[in-house]
Amino acid sequence: MFQPVYLDHNATTPVHPAVLEAMLPYFSRHYGNASSRHEHGRAARRALDEARQRVAHAAGAHPTEIVFTSGGSEANNLFVKGVAATRKPGMLAISAIEHPCVREPARQLRRNGWRLREIAIDGDCRVATADFLAVLAEGPELISVMLANNETGTVQDVAALAERAALYRVNQLANHDANTPANKAWFHTDAVQAFGKIPLDFRQLNARGVHAMTLSSHKIGGPKGAGALVVDKRVDLQALIAGGGHERGLRSGTENVPAIVGFGLASEIACADISARAARQRALRDELENGLAAQGATIFALAASRLPNTTYFALPDLDGETLVARLDRAGFALASGAACSSANPEPSHVLLAMGVAPGLARGAVRISLGADTDLATVREFLAALGETTRQFKLQLNRMSALVQ
Amino acid sequence: MFQPVYLDHNATTPVHPAVLEAMLPYFSRHYGNASSRHEHGRAARRALDEARQRVAHAAGAHPTEIVFTSGGSEANNLFVKGVAATRKPGMLAISAIEHPCVREPARQLRRNGWRLREIAIDGDCRVATADFLAVLAEGPELISVMLANNETGTVQDVAALAERAALYRVNQLANHDANTPANKAWFHTDAVQAFGKIPLDFRQLNARGVHAMTLSSHKIGGPKGAGALVVDKRVDLQALIAGGGHERGLRSGTENVPAIVGFGLASEIACADISARAARQRALRDELENGLAAQGATIFALAASRLPNTTYFALPDLDGETLVARLDRAGFALASGAACSSANPEPSHVLLAMGVAPGLARGAVRISLGADTDLATVREFLAALGETTRQFKLQLNRMSALVQ
Repeated sequence: MFQPVYLDHNATTPVHPAVLEAMLPYFSRHYGNASSRHEHGRAARRALDEARQRVAHAAGAHPTEIVFTSGGSEANNLFVKGVAATRKPGMLAISAIEHPCVREPARQLRRNGWRLREIAIDGDCRVATADFLAVLAEGPELISVMLANNETGTVQDVAALAERAALYRVNQLANHDANTPANKAWFHTDAVQAFGKIPLDFRQLNARGVHAMTLSSHKIGGPKGAGALVVDKRVDLQALIAGGGHERGLRSGTENVPAIVGFGLASEIACADISARAARQRALRDELENGLAAQGATIFALAASRLPNTTYFALPDLDGETLVARLDRAGFALASGAACSSANPEPSHVLLAMGVAPGLARGAVRISLGADTDLATVREFLAALGETTRQFKLQLNRMSALVQ
Repeated sequence: MFQPVYLDHNATTPVHPAVLEAMLPYFSRHYGNASSRHEHGRAARRALDEARQRVAHAAGAHPTEIVFTSGGSEANNLFVKGVAATRKPGMLAISAIEHPCVREPARQLRRNGWRLREIAIDGDCRVATADFLAVLAEGPELISVMLANNETGTVQDVAALAERAALYRVNQLANHDANTPANKAWFHTDAVQAFGKIPLDFRQLNARGVHAMTLSSHKIGGPKGAGALVVDKRVDLQALIAGGGHERGLRSGTENVPAIVGFGLASEIACADISARAARQRALRDELENGLAAQGATIFALAASRLPNTTYFALPDLDGETLVARLDRAGFALASGAACSSANPEPSHVLLAMGVAPGLARGAVRISLGADTDLATVREFLAALGETTRQFKLQLNRMSALVQ
């Protein structure tokens, strides 16, 4: 079957061959339940322990800070709803560009009496400092700002934001009426898109006030079905999936041993040569963006610090969905708007929050390079894009001539 | 590495070779995100559609009634907490022998103002009819009774129980004050242990008043990391994992395509020869239980209708944990108490609910046969058990002689 060249690595990635090889023994040979007290169970437990160490090492965390989940969406829901479940309804703040798996649980909380405040961003998809400070003054008990945006690739300085939040809290507590104890406020970052693409160190982030961080396996050459919430042990969380008490009582359910083993090795591989790969991808992206600019494209969030593999652009008068469909037939797999969410014909909420006009936002197309994308592919893509848009405009002109 | 003979199939099962083979292309070749609008995405979507049809067919459900989850624990939490989230706190009833992944979310609801009532069971692990009727009179809005118990293997007549609940509800509504509309009451069954071991038909159960049913992949020769909530579309549910709107808005997160593909084929394989396998396992179990009885074992729930592969027993004066550890060294992998839950030295809550004395309950050991367990294995196991207990008793006698 024909398979287009894959330029959609922010949506998902192929499983790395070494990762698949490492997983295989855990399906049919070391298939034990890690809770079982016999050799089959102990073999599974050892594999989980090793994977936990690998993920922790790659993320700069301690193994006991890793809570394995079925993926990033679950980890984000676990944090947002898990913190809220331990408290009376209060206020939570999320950035206006969060992934739906942060935004939707936040909206569920709003229906349960929580006050939800979205933090504004600027035209390059960065959190707007003035609005962030205004939000802090409203006293949120829970803040979630993603580390890198899945669409634009914009990287937030979450450490600086968390530091501000922590400082604000200290001042607030100093002026606090001693008779009404204040709740602790927690800062979470969805690092699903950042992990494995730019260096990440939970210990450093934690020291500056980040209390939890979400990771995903399938965005970094690992299998689907595994992710993690990296979480400071001071955070009081209620389990989203309650039951047998797995993962220190924070996530019950028989551990998905093969997927977690794969996640562990994928973390190690992705983080091992992060700087070299990032440099390579930046060079390719420069080539790509020069070519796109020459074809008249608007490139979004150009002034921001961005993930090295991500380009988000629009061509004048061309619909993004249509362009993606035509490029698919021309042999290139890309995303239009947000790639992770299901059928949703609305223009990207990220671009709208950036103040991009809806007409231009509807044209948005995302290219996300992989570890093995090469210069020849980028050049072939640019040629195919040029030809596709030329054909498309010819058709449009013919149609408008018929109408006249 | 030495691997004991596996007699713990209620804890988990090896992945069937054909299932693993069917999964493999979805890791590194058809690795697309099923939400992506290019050929990689469409290939993943087609695989999910086919798997959904297979699971639905095996469970006697319609494909649109299947909500894929990461496993049985998530599906049980989704139902219990998902129904409760759409309502004001009311009353819920679960049987006293539910798996922790039903009991714990129910207890979380109790902390949020719900009234939780546990339904008593009899000495053979069957729901006690008188207490069930008493519970109905208390007006539960949500009832969960497992189809087959993971420890004893006892099969409940959930259709009859659901029918009673529905009838009760009809009478109640007839006498209801028209000015205060009554909430609908939903009946759920955790069918994780029953699925693939005894015939199961959601359409028939649904016609008699069962509204939702939980399935798991890794108990039936499928991979870990997949499960399903089969759910009547009239049930109003809030998503446990909210986000991109996958699974008709009931379970967000990038679908675990390889695991779901494996779950689909495993469902088909497990249900294809269910009667022949059940007959074979019943004959093996009779042999096993005759041998156990000859060694002085108490076999639990002997008078109940049970899963064909499950035997739960205790030997006088022998601790179950110790016996399992010794049998592991002797080459047989079994479970003591509940196998799915993490470190928990308490005697089984199932046996205590059955009225078994704590001393005897502490001796409980479970054998759960697989599709390929044979007569030779059963006989070898009985011989090993005899020898292990003989050695054990000699040691005990020697120790007590030293003490005297």
